[in-house]
Amino acid sequence: MDTLEVAGRTFRVARARAVDVPALIALLADDVLGRGRENGAMEPYLRAFEQIDADPHQLLVAVRDEDEQIAATVQLTLLAGLSRGGATRLQIEAVRVDASARGTGLGSALLTWAHGWGRERGAVLAQLTTDRSRADAHRFYERLGYEPSHVGFKRPL
Amino acid sequence: MDTLEVAGRTFRVARARAVDVPALIALLADDVLGRGRENGAMEPYLRAFEQIDADPHQLLVAVRDEDEQIAATVQLTLLAGLSRGGATRLQIEAVRVDASARGTGLGSALLTWAHGWGRERGAVLAQLTTDRSRADAHRFYERLGYEPSHVGFKRPL
Repeated sequence: MDTLEVAGRTFRVARARAVDVPALIALLADDVLGRGRENGAMEPYLRAFEQIDADPHQLLVAVRDEDEQIAATVQLTLLAGLSRGGATRLQIEAVRVDASARGTGLGSALLTWAHGWGRERGAVLAQLTTDRSRADAHRFYERLGYEPSHVGFKRPL
Repeated sequence: MDTLEVAGRTFRVARARAVDVPALIALLADDVLGRGRENGAMEPYLRAFEQIDADPHQLLVAVRDEDEQIAATVQLTLLAGLSRGGATRLQIEAVRVDASARGTGLGSALLTWAHGWGRERGAVLAQLTTDRSRADAHRFYERLGYEPSHVGFKRPL
């Protein structure tokens, strides 16, 4: 697939495979909020991976560094909808950059790549939510052209 | 499908059909923010409807009143994901209640129905965003048990 060149380094963007799941979970867990939310049982994660992988509207991205280690991830979903003139949205979830690659600009490069992926598939609007406490993330998304125009509500079912 | 009994009235919840699209667009447009966003050309809406309708993870809901008029709508999507222990999310978009049915409790009944629809299909978390300016909607979702824990970012592509 594609490569991202940032800070003199080369990262490769690819569709995640089942063997990547443990490394992706480690990345989700290496985070101030993720730490308390991810646990050891692998089976529900593998089942979730299979559902994502089988869905033609979803792409789970694994970004690898020069040593084939997973350096970043993002989950992309194309959401068709009636509103805004029948607009397709690019839903962005679970953006994470490994500590080894932070500060390189990899996050920005990955989001820019994701925007292109969505545009090529007809999306005209990108949307995501971040926890209110993630002030760094808010600045990151605003630099990428996002507007904090909405309140994100969540509720356990 | 199911019925919602509110304020002495009976509403029926059904999967939207292509013939419902004009009425659904009218509902989206009858809104302080929707007014400027929806326009006359029907073809992109019908194409979007076909994409939603063909997606096994999506349900576009049309709620009808006693006279078969469309009284409310919501778009539901099941989003598999790795984070939070491989949790499936219920993504809720485009919630609208017709002026003729506002104040009856139909909105709450519809959201409660939507939560059950998601739960039956394995979703453990509901999520939605509303424009920052919709103070009434914020109160509505908080009464339904939602937490305004996130900032919702959007960006044109």
